Amino acid sequence: MRNLRVIERVREHSGAKALLALKCFATWSVFDLMREYMDGTTSSSLFEVRLGRETFGGETHAYSVAFADHEIDAVVANADKIIFNSIGQLERFADRAGALARGLRLNPGVSSSDFDLADPARPFSRLGEWDPEKIAPVVDELDGFMIHNNCENADFGLFDRMLGQIENRFGAFLSKVDWVSLGGGIHFTGEGYPLELFCERLKAFSQRFGVQVYLEPGEAAVTRSTTLEVTVLDTLHNGKDLAIVDSSTEAHMLDLLIYRQSAKVSPDKGPHRYMVCGKSCLAGDIFGEFSFEAPLKPGDRISINDAAGYTMVKKNWFNGVHMPSIVVRELDGSLRVAREFSFEDYKSSLS
Amino acid sequence: MRNLRVIERVREHSGAKALLALKCFATWSVFDLMREYMDGTTSSSLFEVRLGRETFGGETHAYSVAFADHEIDAVVANADKIIFNSIGQLERFADRAGALARGLRLNPGVSSSDFDLADPARPFSRLGEWDPEKIAPVVDELDGFMIHNNCENADFGLFDRMLGQIENRFGAFLSKVDWVSLGGGIHFTGEGYPLELFCERLKAFSQRFGVQVYLEPGEAAVTRSTTLEVTVLDTLHNGKDLAIVDSSTEAHMLDLLIYRQSAKVSPDKGPHRYMVCGKSCLAGDIFGEFSFEAPLKPGDRISINDAAGYTMVKKNWFNGVHMPSIVVRELDGSLRVAREFSFEDYKSSLS
Repeated sequence: MRNLRVIERVREHSGAKALLALKCFATWSVFDLMREYMDGTTSSSLFEVRLGRETFGGETHAYSVAFADHEIDAVVANADKIIFNSIGQLERFADRAGALARGLRLNPGVSSSDFDLADPARPFSRLGEWDPEKIAPVVDELDGFMIHNNCENADFGLFDRMLGQIENRFGAFLSKVDWVSLGGGIHFTGEGYPLELFCERLKAFSQRFGVQVYLEPGEAAVTRSTTLEVTVLDTLHNGKDLAIVDSSTEAHMLDLLIYRQSAKVSPDKGPHRYMVCGKSCLAGDIFGEFSFEAPLKPGDRISINDAAGYTMVKKNWFNGVHMPSIVVRELDGSLRVAREFSFEDYKSSLS
Repeated sequence: MRNLRVIERVREHSGAKALLALKCFATWSVFDLMREYMDGTTSSSLFEVRLGRETFGGETHAYSVAFADHEIDAVVANADKIIFNSIGQLERFADRAGALARGLRLNPGVSSSDFDLADPARPFSRLGEWDPEKIAPVVDELDGFMIHNNCENADFGLFDRMLGQIENRFGAFLSKVDWVSLGGGIHFTGEGYPLELFCERLKAFSQRFGVQVYLEPGEAAVTRSTTLEVTVLDTLHNGKDLAIVDSSTEAHMLDLLIYRQSAKVSPDKGPHRYMVCGKSCLAGDIFGEFSFEAPLKPGDRISINDAAGYTMVKKNWFNGVHMPSIVVRELDGSLRVAREFSFEDYKSSLS
């Protein structure tokens, strides 16, 4: 809830609209609540467009790194705006976009990403157009731009400097359109983020170019909202104390594996240190090393933090490990099981 | 088919039995064919045990890094043998295993893996028991052992030397049981693998200890059998020629991303070089750089090789990218669509 209240405040004070990035979080059983605090959704595929339109409502932005010919009519039918990744896609589909507002993704060549893998400004990036000479001839066909170059960026100064570079580079284009989306990856719901400065900066940007600003929070909308609840199944000692739990990084928290990161467990205090491991066959299926007040034993429960963003959207059936149920804690504290997964779900995923 | 014929030949010449490792490949619409050449399946979870029993038949081995209390009865009901990862699991569930043959996983402390992530003998590994002093007291409770320390090992000499180390370390235990599974990861269906030496080595091992040998091929059973068919959606130039296709490494060929590897495309010849990229939002969603005879354009088809092992079992709905259909090429050359995925499949994966 804290995240949503911050988003609401930023909307009020900056004039920006906020769209949930479904690529990060698409657990639609909680959209009833989220839509009260956000303007709609943005997407990265036809299926996300449809999910946003059907389950969230509000403004539905359609973006994709590349739309297919056979998808475009369904995309147009379900979206309020369509944002193309390239001039090639814009020209290919302009006629079929009808009266829909049209945008183009710009790549400013700077980003806040520490990971090459996740850096939209990496060398040879395919994400957006970067060459003003190519963009100039098509500006008149556009109603807006999308720029997404922040990534878990909790540093307002860095955001501000990069936005300045964008203004310098693309300012002439920005003033010709009606709206600009600044994408996601801005960690403005984090503790201590200078919200007033952020809102002023957004408002100044909006006024300078005469555009409606959009933000597309993903992680920022759901950070610290969700845990992965796991149960210890076995303990072992092989140089270290090991605890095996009924989950798997690869199947249920994939980014830990892709980015070689450790999970977060709180309070992570006490004299008993364990390497907490998943139950898949992968040798490196390790959540991390954590401290506990008492020795772990089968049946003990561990809560793994920050299990919402870029987590549930990536879960898979590797090893046939039982997928965790999706359980919603309602505002009154009660728990509601939104989805349980069965053997039939596993079986039907394969053929 | 070539893989399956080699497996059949190894079974005949070595006396070993061969079980398909479902963790690697579980596309059950082709099991009708595979079961003619293999003895059954091995598994890494309750759901894989059930899938093996229901869709493949034959001998069904149940292994898991850790079984849960609430799973064990269903595991026992669906398996012919149960293999425990630890002495702790053996003792916890021995009573509930009934008359089922019981095994224990041994960790010989040596492996063929080049990747720390996939190395079962890595420091602090949780995969199997390694201390002879702990194993000795429980040998009488066991009917067999499982050892899995090969990983894409195409080097018979290395396999032979590691098996020698296993004989030296655990020989006294091996001669007390009825069967030994040598796991998977032995690339004996590859070109030029010395099959006769391999069969002799297995037979000698079997005779020396008086055990039935099992092999658990995964990748070896399906290598080169399957392609991921993708279509070019857009081309761009950003320092290199880029082609965006209607798929994603992260969603459809996850190991490329986890192990930072390039896909394989054949023939990969010609004057036109492209970086082939996926359509997910991930900046590093790149299949690799390949050469083509003609410039790529939207609509062109590219076949990505080796899309069976550890691929379909890991596909996921990241970005809502449409999952590829599973299409079977029958022995007469005809194509049969085994499974198509829909928006409803995507939606129901999330809540």
